[in-house]
Amino acid sequence: MDKHFWITDQRIDINDCISKVTRAEAGAVNTFIGTVREFTKGKRTLYLEYQAYASMAEKKLTQIGEEIAAKWENTETAIVHRVGRLEISDVAVVIAVSTPHRNDAFEASRYAIERIKEIVPIWKKEHWEDGSLWIGDQKEKISYKKGVPVEEDMRND
Amino acid sequence: MDKHFWITDQRIDINDCISKVTRAEAGAVNTFIGTVREFTKGKRTLYLEYQAYASMAEKKLTQIGEEIAAKWENTETAIVHRVGRLEISDVAVVIAVSTPHRNDAFEASRYAIERIKEIVPIWKKEHWEDGSLWIGDQKEKISYKKGVPVEEDMRND
Repeated sequence: MDKHFWITDQRIDINDCISKVTRAEAGAVNTFIGTVREFTKGKRTLYLEYQAYASMAEKKLTQIGEEIAAKWENTETAIVHRVGRLEISDVAVVIAVSTPHRNDAFEASRYAIERIKEIVPIWKKEHWEDGSLWIGDQKEKISYKKGVPVEEDMRND
Repeated sequence: MDKHFWITDQRIDINDCISKVTRAEAGAVNTFIGTVREFTKGKRTLYLEYQAYASMAEKKLTQIGEEIAAKWENTETAIVHRVGRLEISDVAVVIAVSTPHRNDAFEASRYAIERIKEIVPIWKKEHWEDGSLWIGDQKEKISYKKGVPVEEDMRND
């Protein structure tokens, strides 16, 4: 499978993502890895659940790759986001960007994670010691107190 | 071995470097990977050789980790640089920095690669189609036309 932008319910192999962008013209690869953090503002997370509108999410990840290709010359990008139940320190997202020169790799990778949080329909359910909550968008501005978001909620474009 | 800053003459395992910094308090890992690029300004590289004053290089890499710890809160850094003969697309250097929040991870990783090029005694011999040259410092401002640098040349601090 040579998909560069995908959603998976399996453990992410970071090398798999990096090897998709490694090539002779590139001298730099920047990788951003998002992992499940145990404490947020003193509150302990036990585990997380991610849910995605997968086909739309892959379309949006692909769009981010196209945006990067338009903004920085000679880039190659791969992005994978995991869904389902994730434990502390599990890898939730990997972005890999290769470029001939390092400055572009840093900038493009940074751009990608911000855009993922802006436009990709992935929801997170935080399970704390004292309860749980679906977080409606990745910028964490919308909560779904009634429970799991329905597919209609996921069409955020 | 739990060394976080090291020189190796073996193929670098990127996951090994990343796993050294992955931890429950961190939600973000930024990784910078430097690979051997085939073309530089139209000139084709066949392969590279890196040589280091290894004990000093590890000391300097450790210093960079300490500088990062002083500049950004709650970071964990690992850096490995390979020496010997490297082929096109081989991994020459991996930097991994984990932080609770992603902004710091990007900044610290960026800082690390610039500092490596400034202070770490590692020399590169470019083998092109039409000849070869030892590059005296990683900012590529010094050349050793006479051949391999001697140990004296490597004590650059």
